[in-house]
Amino acid sequence: MSRIAAFGEVMMRLETPGYSTLSQSGSLAYSFSGSGVNVVSALSRFGHETYLASTLPDNSLGDAALSYLRKLGVQTTFVNRGGRYVGMYFLERGFGIRPGKVTYTDRLGSSFNTVPHDPADWERIADAVDAVHFCGITLAMNELARTQIKRLASVVKSRGGKVIFDCNYRPSLWGEDGHARAKPHYREMLELADIVFMNEKDALLTLGMTSSSGAEDPLSQLLELIPQVAKQYGIGTIAGTHRRVNADNTHTLTGYLHADGAFWFAQPSTFAVYDRVGAGDAYASGIMHACLRGDDPQYAVDYATAAAVLAHTVHGDTPLASEADVVKAMSRKAGDIER
Amino acid sequence: MSRIAAFGEVMMRLETPGYSTLSQSGSLAYSFSGSGVNVVSALSRFGHETYLASTLPDNSLGDAALSYLRKLGVQTTFVNRGGRYVGMYFLERGFGIRPGKVTYTDRLGSSFNTVPHDPADWERIADAVDAVHFCGITLAMNELARTQIKRLASVVKSRGGKVIFDCNYRPSLWGEDGHARAKPHYREMLELADIVFMNEKDALLTLGMTSSSGAEDPLSQLLELIPQVAKQYGIGTIAGTHRRVNADNTHTLTGYLHADGAFWFAQPSTFAVYDRVGAGDAYASGIMHACLRGDDPQYAVDYATAAAVLAHTVHGDTPLASEADVVKAMSRKAGDIER
Amino acid sequence: MSRIAAFGEVMMRLETPGYSTLSQSGSLAYSFSGSGVNVVSALSRFGHETYLASTLPDNSLGDAALSYLRKLGVQTTFVNRGGRYVGMYFLERGFGIRPGKVTYTDRLGSSFNTVPHDPADWERIADAVDAVHFCGITLAMNELARTQIKRLASVVKSRGGKVIFDCNYRPSLWGEDGHARAKPHYREMLELADIVFMNEKDALLTLGMTSSSGAEDPLSQLLELIPQVAKQYGIGTIAGTHRRVNADNTHTLTGYLHADGAFWFAQPSTFAVYDRVGAGDAYASGIMHACLRGDDPQYAVDYATAAAVLAHTVHGDTPLASEADVVKAMSRKAGDIER
Amino acid sequence: MSRIAAFGEVMMRLETPGYSTLSQSGSLAYSFSGSGVNVVSALSRFGHETYLASTLPDNSLGDAALSYLRKLGVQTTFVNRGGRYVGMYFLERGFGIRPGKVTYTDRLGSSFNTVPHDPADWERIADAVDAVHFCGITLAMNELARTQIKRLASVVKSRGGKVIFDCNYRPSLWGEDGHARAKPHYREMLELADIVFMNEKDALLTLGMTSSSGAEDPLSQLLELIPQVAKQYGIGTIAGTHRRVNADNTHTLTGYLHADGAFWFAQPSTFAVYDRVGAGDAYASGIMHACLRGDDPQYAVDYATAAAVLAHTVHGDTPLASEADVVKAMSRKAGDIER
Amino acid sequence: MSRIAAFGEVMMRLETPGYSTLSQSGSLAYSFSGSGVNVVSALSRFGHETYLASTLPDNSLGDAALSYLRKLGVQTTFVNRGGRYVGMYFLERGFGIRPGKVTYTDRLGSSFNTVPHDPADWERIADAVDAVHFCGITLAMNELARTQIKRLASVVKSRGGKVIFDCNYRPSLWGEDGHARAKPHYREMLELADIVFMNEKDALLTLGMTSSSGAEDPLSQLLELIPQVAKQYGIGTIAGTHRRVNADNTHTLTGYLHADGAFWFAQPSTFAVYDRVGAGDAYASGIMHACLRGDDPQYAVDYATAAAVLAHTVHGDTPLASEADVVKAMSRKAGDIER
Amino acid sequence: MSRIAAFGEVMMRLETPGYSTLSQSGSLAYSFSGSGVNVVSALSRFGHETYLASTLPDNSLGDAALSYLRKLGVQTTFVNRGGRYVGMYFLERGFGIRPGKVTYTDRLGSSFNTVPHDPADWERIADAVDAVHFCGITLAMNELARTQIKRLASVVKSRGGKVIFDCNYRPSLWGEDGHARAKPHYREMLELADIVFMNEKDALLTLGMTSSSGAEDPLSQLLELIPQVAKQYGIGTIAGTHRRVNADNTHTLTGYLHADGAFWFAQPSTFAVYDRVGAGDAYASGIMHACLRGDDPQYAVDYATAAAVLAHTVHGDTPLASEADVVKAMSRKAGDIER
Repeated sequence: MSRIAAFGEVMMRLETPGYSTLSQSGSLAYSFSGSGVNVVSALSRFGHETYLASTLPDNSLGDAALSYLRKLGVQTTFVNRGGRYVGMYFLERGFGIRPGKVTYTDRLGSSFNTVPHDPADWERIADAVDAVHFCGITLAMNELARTQIKRLASVVKSRGGKVIFDCNYRPSLWGEDGHARAKPHYREMLELADIVFMNEKDALLTLGMTSSSGAEDPLSQLLELIPQVAKQYGIGTIAGTHRRVNADNTHTLTGYLHADGAFWFAQPSTFAVYDRVGAGDAYASGIMHACLRGDDPQYAVDYATAAAVLAHTVHGDTPLASEADVVKAMSRKAGDIER
Repeated sequence: MSRIAAFGEVMMRLETPGYSTLSQSGSLAYSFSGSGVNVVSALSRFGHETYLASTLPDNSLGDAALSYLRKLGVQTTFVNRGGRYVGMYFLERGFGIRPGKVTYTDRLGSSFNTVPHDPADWERIADAVDAVHFCGITLAMNELARTQIKRLASVVKSRGGKVIFDCNYRPSLWGEDGHARAKPHYREMLELADIVFMNEKDALLTLGMTSSSGAEDPLSQLLELIPQVAKQYGIGTIAGTHRRVNADNTHTLTGYLHADGAFWFAQPSTFAVYDRVGAGDAYASGIMHACLRGDDPQYAVDYATAAAVLAHTVHGDTPLASEADVVKAMSRKAGDIER
Repeated sequence: MSRIAAFGEVMMRLETPGYSTLSQSGSLAYSFSGSGVNVVSALSRFGHETYLASTLPDNSLGDAALSYLRKLGVQTTFVNRGGRYVGMYFLERGFGIRPGKVTYTDRLGSSFNTVPHDPADWERIADAVDAVHFCGITLAMNELARTQIKRLASVVKSRGGKVIFDCNYRPSLWGEDGHARAKPHYREMLELADIVFMNEKDALLTLGMTSSSGAEDPLSQLLELIPQVAKQYGIGTIAGTHRRVNADNTHTLTGYLHADGAFWFAQPSTFAVYDRVGAGDAYASGIMHACLRGDDPQYAVDYATAAAVLAHTVHGDTPLASEADVVKAMSRKAGDIER
Repeated sequence: MSRIAAFGEVMMRLETPGYSTLSQSGSLAYSFSGSGVNVVSALSRFGHETYLASTLPDNSLGDAALSYLRKLGVQTTFVNRGGRYVGMYFLERGFGIRPGKVTYTDRLGSSFNTVPHDPADWERIADAVDAVHFCGITLAMNELARTQIKRLASVVKSRGGKVIFDCNYRPSLWGEDGHARAKPHYREMLELADIVFMNEKDALLTLGMTSSSGAEDPLSQLLELIPQVAKQYGIGTIAGTHRRVNADNTHTLTGYLHADGAFWFAQPSTFAVYDRVGAGDAYASGIMHACLRGDDPQYAVDYATAAAVLAHTVHGDTPLASEADVVKAMSRKAGDIER
Repeated sequence: MSRIAAFGEVMMRLETPGYSTLSQSGSLAYSFSGSGVNVVSALSRFGHETYLASTLPDNSLGDAALSYLRKLGVQTTFVNRGGRYVGMYFLERGFGIRPGKVTYTDRLGSSFNTVPHDPADWERIADAVDAVHFCGITLAMNELARTQIKRLASVVKSRGGKVIFDCNYRPSLWGEDGHARAKPHYREMLELADIVFMNEKDALLTLGMTSSSGAEDPLSQLLELIPQVAKQYGIGTIAGTHRRVNADNTHTLTGYLHADGAFWFAQPSTFAVYDRVGAGDAYASGIMHACLRGDDPQYAVDYATAAAVLAHTVHGDTPLASEADVVKAMSRKAGDIER
Repeated sequence: MSRIAAFGEVMMRLETPGYSTLSQSGSLAYSFSGSGVNVVSALSRFGHETYLASTLPDNSLGDAALSYLRKLGVQTTFVNRGGRYVGMYFLERGFGIRPGKVTYTDRLGSSFNTVPHDPADWERIADAVDAVHFCGITLAMNELARTQIKRLASVVKSRGGKVIFDCNYRPSLWGEDGHARAKPHYREMLELADIVFMNEKDALLTLGMTSSSGAEDPLSQLLELIPQVAKQYGIGTIAGTHRRVNADNTHTLTGYLHADGAFWFAQPSTFAVYDRVGAGDAYASGIMHACLRGDDPQYAVDYATAAAVLAHTVHGDTPLASEADVVKAMSRKAGDIER
């Protein structure tokens, strides 16, 4: 098993019960998550030794976040204390035609986005792990976050560790002219990365590539552009998913993996959705698990897809399935009670 | 925007959690609603200045109801205090083949149904608003309710305000020979009304009309009878819906509007149902909103249908969608999280 | 052990959580109680075979009440179904200087107060039991309740059963000139009763007696008047309590028993109060238990006092202590965890 | 109506809220059930006088279980107190591809499985009832349970009562070589039984029968083997169901009844599932109700199927439908609110 | 009755249940409050027409806050929408020796503290009301808040309205050298104010006054300094309280009022505390109510003290007592259930 | 800071809400604790690196327990998986005269008490830590537990680690003639121990010592016997508390420490109790913290007493106070909100 860290912010998720709105309800359930949190938590359930590199305030909210990370099985050695705030988001679930809503508090003022790590931390982290996970959401935050993300990636790479980067472009975070502003930072990360999560949209919009064949359907664009990205940036493994929301509220997910110049695809999975936040992180953790172990690519996409589907069936952002759960799910349709 | 009042009873809704029965559970969630409450609450979210004319006891339950009305955005200037009781109903949700159940407490002893308004109230209300909404449920209560409903409708009409009447015939409230007993009162209301909510069943059963063509399907009957009602009672706008409960528990709703001798229909909408109580009131409020603004009839039925569909997706009797929410829903199938 | 019935209404108690008001909260816990319910429930925990004679509507609320009675250990053979409503009260707990509040729905329209029992029921009940408990609250309801209470008491007495009557005068139920209106009915009940619960206030206010000695303190009045009541109405056992609410929110309770011309008193008990409703019924059930078994009077007052104190420590109107619990409490100050 | 007892263990069910896991949640809802509890509770709602024969510890958990049984309408005269533990199981609901999980505490140490009944109890029970229900789960427990189950069945049969046996084979309880170990005990029970619940799997696996025709589909096997079982063991009525879990998470249930050499089948029912535990017991209680009343076989399967479908729509193991509810459900597709 | 506005921030209060910490719990109850919110909400229950002048973001949290204000009975005409965030605080209740904890999110980035009001708003508000309430917490925020507070106070004063200022100095908000930084702003506000809430600590620490007599006990200092403040700044009414936390966790409150050169004191009140946040605002609202009505000073301190004590008995920051409740509490020790 | 392990069982605590009984409630809150769990959790909050040595089943309950331990900050490297059950106890809180109740499931069948550790574990643990904590509850379990406890203690001692033993005699676990049965095992543990928690009762009852002076008050007995124990068994540090439950439900705690032939006492603390379970473990962890650091004895008793008092103010068995919290509490009476 590997030793894996993620660098990213810990967010507090506050959600109204059932399908009620903030105006209707008077209570909230809370938990702590974040793209990096989700990935390393999932990986710890797959048997890896995992770490989060982040910063939390030295107050009750920071204490609660730290307890929660430990509960998830993540080592908190590299979580610094300092700054004043935890990033938060409020979640109101939608129903049918009524969309769910996410309302953020000010993330830029959070401890993660205001307090720099001690430079010596980068070496310590790089020494402790085999791979580090980064995500485009962190890249969108501010100059401090961007500087740190690149510094840590460089140190890890220079010491022989693997750099994993999930493009995860969020329009609302980059704002106007976002793609143009994001492009140089994404390119820097791709130069450093060994495993990348993306699909054709990232290639077209953020990297500004174009389809020479003029293909307009996503699959053709994917088949044309991903190999170009792999070649241009020297990325061994690129993976991602296509998601379709169906008329009956089920979702269909198709995972792909590109490695050594070839594509592997999983069978499309159609399923009911209980809580969709964090499912992309589950897919990423599945690919990382299989690739770091050296599983064959077809097994990797199948495993990652099952992990992603399971993540839709669990309350909260953070995947909870063990490796055994995922393996079981790879050969099954619908679950029956296990007595 | 218009100033609109509704005249009607405030009911306390007490419901068991989830799908449990009163014998299983030990707790209840409560809220306050009523046909008039629902309509003016929805209209206040569409930007109108709204009032409820009603009566509540001067005790803790009355205080709680009043707070709740204010929270909904309804002005309570015309809510009198007096009498002793609030009407209540207990709701046990059904599941699949198991029907939901509504159990009432004694509505006839409620403050609304026992304490007459000061006659001067009618003038005050008529002066304050452009339109008043009434409903067939109030008409079914007792002589006091019927006298007051007609008196207020007359005063509003005489001062140039619009009278809106929702037929809303409830068999259990009118009892034996109900249609015969109801007929004269419904006719009086139709004589006064500018906008009426009904469909062919009201024409056939309550008004005792017959289809000369012998048509037996609801749509043909609607197309034949509604124009006759419009003509006979001089009603500018008549609107309503046809609802079909499908085998897979989804519902299909088709809204219609008849104005100036012509019919407009919305595309049938099929959707999953979260809480169906109050959806008819949402449709009514959508029509009222569009008609009072002078929107064209097709926009009115489309808007009202979207408002009704959204009302099925929200917990509680009372529609919560803003005008922006409805407009967004008019051009959409299923909702995705809005970050 | 004895067979004991109570004749009385089943009330639904709906209470806000903690110390919140109906305007603040949105949820209620519910349970079913009533003076008769409380007494027979307590007696069933003391080992007696108990029955309730009452009427409940044939709907979901009636079903829930019936389940609840069975759970309490009360036989429901004599609970008829019919009528339309269950009496209800809403409870908002007070704190310190802020008083708790009880808000009733219309009790007079309840099944119990509108549907007469089949006359043959009285014989059936009288045949099945050794004693029947009645309460002044039922006597206050309406003519139907009064007629039935007296009829059942007469039949039981004529067949050799014991009649137990708890005066329990509630000013708000008798209204203006209440004492005068109540007096003849109370006198009839006292004529029939073998065991009576009352204190000097009932003698002075309801029965209209006066203290010849001019005593003004409650104890002196009690010592003077209770023997007169016992003699005048031929009542073997009269019992009751004096309650004092102390400045620190604790209560002090002093129980007394008058039998065969002599008084017995329990040591005053001072204790913190968790839920005071129903504690009087616990005292009554303690006296009934001891007297029906033939325990000596001092044991009876001590046992009844301990039962009453325990009833203050349990959530809900209905006492839950077993005979063993009461006996243990008779020799103890404050409870420690029992492992 | 009949007098019916069940002999079986009372289990405490502890379940996490919603779809959360034991690691996520911090609270549990609890109730008490068991195959026998479910059957007699359902039968008491169909109008029968019902009893449970079981043993509970004399502590707070035993008290709570006893209250719960009374609430369900089951007479507890034959529930002894003794031993130390209540059997428990923890339930985590699954969602879609994620299976639900049941985790047991040590059932073999429970009061039911360690404390023998007084031999005189068997006569008392046999005298009080017309029929007794047993279940294969009890048979799997230990020698004490098996001895007692057979003893009571013999006594009931010898006094003219009916013996009902539900095969209900649970692999995890019989362990390795389970079918071989179970076979002699199942054969003994079948010899004694008048009504048996089973299907072709029990014939093939537990009784070790083979299909001479070599049929491989369950229906053909059922049609071939059940008549042989009926003949060999002299069983008047054999009934059971086939369940299919569909791709969209709905279930399809097909009930059958074999009596007097002929088969009757219900129309397959397809429905959404709210809580599937206990639905088999609902089917059994439906067959017992109809057979003990002498209804015709087609009515019996239809009634039992409707009862089983309704049991899937109610939270908890224990069916709650009244006879009227079942009859209503027999002629209906999906439920609408009943006002 | 008067028309009264408050100018201040709406805060979201998020609290863990019972006495649990953020690390232990997973749920929060939320409500909306703020010093100005509390004061005008209390005054609306005393019969006044009240307004809040504030700013809320145009998102779900802003909508929820607005609903909550309306529920409290406060007119929201002067609540603007804009900016991005609502100020929040997390509350963990303490127990005994374990202190409660308040953890804030970034208040300075809230809508209230970042979005300036349209200058025309000040005239509109001044025209609509007879008095405006300000508080030292707002003064501590930032330059925008300070500029606006002074501008509105000036406009109100210039149009003949009354300016009410509650000193409410919070050390953590002013930071290092806070008193020195605060002094000029406090002096400006005192120049404008008609009614001021403060005690000797404000005079000594913030205004930098000294006791010429060298008195060291708070009462002597109060008696010496408050008349000087009244004279120097020309303030008609100054009022405040002394609070003492007793060893048994009860609090003792002593209210004072200084007007026309004389002091009035209320009897010290000792009471158990359910929720202490907001009690100072209740005292202020009591003084404002009595002074604006022209009640005599002794009645004013007594009324305000009773209002403050009642505010300790209610969950949440916001006082809920009606005028009738306060008057009742003025003549009472401990509350008994009101049936 | 030190590295400290505890060897002991993880118990699941299931408690009814508020003051309700298992018969009244339908829900339970659960958490995981145990004497060893409590001690190392408290020590991890004081800054030590802590471990639990225990065994949990490889099922959902075991997973939940493991998550909970991690959340508490305890390393789970030495928690094995195996066996079938988790020990459980149900807690019903008492109120005033009504005692709380603890009901256990079968602890002897738990994973901890049935599955032996790999002998190599003892060396691994001894290598990893500076001290190990044991407790008399484990000693009471069965021969397996006793063998393991002594083996680990010996190995730790032989490698220079400290052995800490908390006598914690539980009569119900040792049963009849318990003290006689326990004596040899306690003596063995005392021979091995460096720090022991006990008081005069353990010396008199378990060790069978007698007071030569004939002293009957606990303090005199303590002063006479503890030095003898220290001398006889060569124990450097012995510590413990005297607890008194006062009439007003407060508790008074007096901590003592005996080291190097001398006694140190803390000032008696009197306080209200929120949750008393686990307070003894908090005292033990305070003594261990101070002694392992080499603090002076007076500081140690004062620190331990403050830690114990704080543990009474927190819900759950497990102390939550940080070192800073304890230090703050050492100089304070009652807590005020910290903003």
